[in-house]
Amino acid sequence: MSISSEIDKLTREECIKILRDRFGELVNNLIKGKDPVLVMPKRILSNTIYDEKNKLLLLGPEMLKRSFLDVNETKKFMQTLLMASIIYEALVNNEYPTIRDLYYRGKHSINYRDLSGKIYYENTWDEQRESDSVIRDLEVYLGVLREKLLILSKEKGKVVGNLVIKSGDDVIDLSKMGHGAYSIEPTPDLIEFRDVNAEYVLVVEKDAVFQQLHRYGFWKKNRAILVTSAGQPDRATRRFVRRLNEELKLPVYILTDADPYGFYIYSVFKVGSITLSYESERLATPNAKFIGVSLTDIFGTSILNKILKDEKKVGNIPVKEILKLPSKKPYLSENERRNYIIKAKMRDIERAVELVGYDVMEVCLENKEVKNSIKKKEGLIGYPWLKTPEWVREICIFFNTLSKLEIEAMASKGLKFLADEYIPLKIETRDFID
Amino acid sequence: MSISSEIDKLTREECIKILRDRFGELVNNLIKGKDPVLVMPKRILSNTIYDEKNKLLLLGPEMLKRSFLDVNETKKFMQTLLMASIIYEALVNNEYPTIRDLYYRGKHSINYRDLSGKIYYENTWDEQRESDSVIRDLEVYLGVLREKLLILSKEKGKVVGNLVIKSGDDVIDLSKMGHGAYSIEPTPDLIEFRDVNAEYVLVVEKDAVFQQLHRYGFWKKNRAILVTSAGQPDRATRRFVRRLNEELKLPVYILTDADPYGFYIYSVFKVGSITLSYESERLATPNAKFIGVSLTDIFGTSILNKILKDEKKVGNIPVKEILKLPSKKPYLSENERRNYIIKAKMRDIERAVELVGYDVMEVCLENKEVKNSIKKKEGLIGYPWLKTPEWVREICIFFNTLSKLEIEAMASKGLKFLADEYIPLKIETRDFID
Repeated sequence: MSISSEIDKLTREECIKILRDRFGELVNNLIKGKDPVLVMPKRILSNTIYDEKNKLLLLGPEMLKRSFLDVNETKKFMQTLLMASIIYEALVNNEYPTIRDLYYRGKHSINYRDLSGKIYYENTWDEQRESDSVIRDLEVYLGVLREKLLILSKEKGKVVGNLVIKSGDDVIDLSKMGHGAYSIEPTPDLIEFRDVNAEYVLVVEKDAVFQQLHRYGFWKKNRAILVTSAGQPDRATRRFVRRLNEELKLPVYILTDADPYGFYIYSVFKVGSITLSYESERLATPNAKFIGVSLTDIFGTSILNKILKDEKKVGNIPVKEILKLPSKKPYLSENERRNYIIKAKMRDIERAVELVGYDVMEVCLENKEVKNSIKKKEGLIGYPWLKTPEWVREICIFFNTLSKLEIEAMASKGLKFLADEYIPLKIETRDFID
Repeated sequence: MSISSEIDKLTREECIKILRDRFGELVNNLIKGKDPVLVMPKRILSNTIYDEKNKLLLLGPEMLKRSFLDVNETKKFMQTLLMASIIYEALVNNEYPTIRDLYYRGKHSINYRDLSGKIYYENTWDEQRESDSVIRDLEVYLGVLREKLLILSKEKGKVVGNLVIKSGDDVIDLSKMGHGAYSIEPTPDLIEFRDVNAEYVLVVEKDAVFQQLHRYGFWKKNRAILVTSAGQPDRATRRFVRRLNEELKLPVYILTDADPYGFYIYSVFKVGSITLSYESERLATPNAKFIGVSLTDIFGTSILNKILKDEKKVGNIPVKEILKLPSKKPYLSENERRNYIIKAKMRDIERAVELVGYDVMEVCLENKEVKNSIKKKEGLIGYPWLKTPEWVREICIFFNTLSKLEIEAMASKGLKFLADEYIPLKIETRDFID
């Protein structure tokens, strides 16, 4: 017997009803002699739209029909119903499956005969990639995130700060975690916010830097809620941050390494990822700000006069728009820069091209040899939401200097510097990218 | 200004004193006109000893002298003193560095002239590998773990259960974490155990399975303390588990995937790792038990009669010792086995050879092709603490079937099965490996 929290019991009942309603239609159609058909939005790149107004990646209007009687669709149809029934069983039986677990539960061979009596074998699915995709289809079809269906997953996100929550049957004061932290639950929609006394949320990419700031008392002094995604953010951390922003009206600042990977992490928090575009509406935080570490924090802005002196445009951004942005002095001395900077790797450069497009690299990167070896990315146009003067300025400096820097370098200049100067100053002077 | 906990302040004072004492000697020697020399145990493989009695990896008796006046040693000597002074500064200045951070803090070029006046440049260190090794030297020289020096790191370990601790200035009830968990601090020696009401500790390799068992109420029903290492355990998780065992006298059971990587995780918890042998005395839990998933849980033991029928010895273990171990029936049906098992990869087989030696593979693996491609591991003798009839039996079945299985497969047979049958039954019937 499982000992479940009250909220889990309610959620189970609600989801069981949703599943019965949505698939009940299908059964009714069958009884009426109609073809069993599932209709749902297409989860493909060409149906993924960047909504300029709401600054979100969204699914477009294209729908697909999945029909049992269409031979090309039968297997997908079977997979979808199989997964729905496994999830339904899990809900009814008080289980908490993981996506890995659902893959195993459904994995078996189906045998069938053709008209001549010959027996064929067909696997329900062979790899988790397949069953995961079916789960995504179901999320879209049901309009319910998998977390709500009480499907669990590993969870890296942590939080501390002046925030009292109710999770399960417990009320938890996140300012009383000692030197440790509160590890966010995999189903953050079930968290109830009880009381908050904070001015903003600081999300730190790196767990080790989170530990340093926490231990230093950063969140106490600055009345901040401190979160770490411990690398690439998982769904629960993204949803949790979004809820802090939306429901508690707290500004969200993201602190990552100064490299294309860090910028991508920011982009995922802010806009969503392409694979999960159907979830951005619930997972993304469109007004999250990138607080740093930026390339202009390291090099200042004067370097751009040199890089762009003979240019009119960088990608589709006029050079004059870049040069009229507020100028900045670097936070690091030349000596510090020399010791802290890391040389960009090939995959950093490729990632940067994915972010802002081949055109920007074309203009800003001087090293011919590097340029030539990146040819295969030609044609990439970058993410629309990063094609702004601010971001092109950053990544242009990256291409030109081929330099990156870790947050730890800022801490090694002194934790005092990072915690008492750099972060508060950047927030106070609004020296961030929106 | 940092807002530190009381225990951090006390720890700082204590460590400042230790550093002053240990390096004060050096200064006194200098004043007296003696050579500055550091004497410390050798941290090399040949000086790593498996202590049969205490079942621990330990540093042997060999010592090294690091002398400033020996040209071959000057750089290492300089690095050690540089790192000691950086750590000392950090302690005095209320900082909480990370190892990455210490690498950056010390990284710079030293210039010097030879007798002819020519200037040379020498970097203090180029890679973090170098500075990390210096930190290890200091841990050994000072007899203090880096955590105590308030050097922080990222931390993956989590815990829930009927345990009240004091961490920093807070008292925390680990049974009141809702659906989330308590994320262990990177300095677990500073935790104070206040109150406990538990029968044992269950350490789960996988975070997702931890989430499932937690949500299901496993630890409430079984009065267990539930811990996850979220993969390969970090130092803090190992130290925390060790303290639960040593100070609270709780038995520790480790639950991993049924594969050589999972067995290695168990080995690290129990005995320590070779790189960190000097820390096993404080990090390892010599009486931790491997609860599963074992290969005999999957296949039972009758399979061995077939594999070993013409053999006298497997490695250095007589076959009759293996065959007289208690026989076991599998926990999985043939059908479940077929759906859940994963084919071992080449690197699983290589890892298994590292664990128990080439000899065991030689006898148990039938597939000639695979056998031939593993030739380069010839001569490997395995870890002494795994050369037991119980472990050789397990890994012999692994070699023979080339099969592995994830814990998730056990959960997909039903979380009820995993939580209410498999784990409690294995503990009750003492069906584990010591």
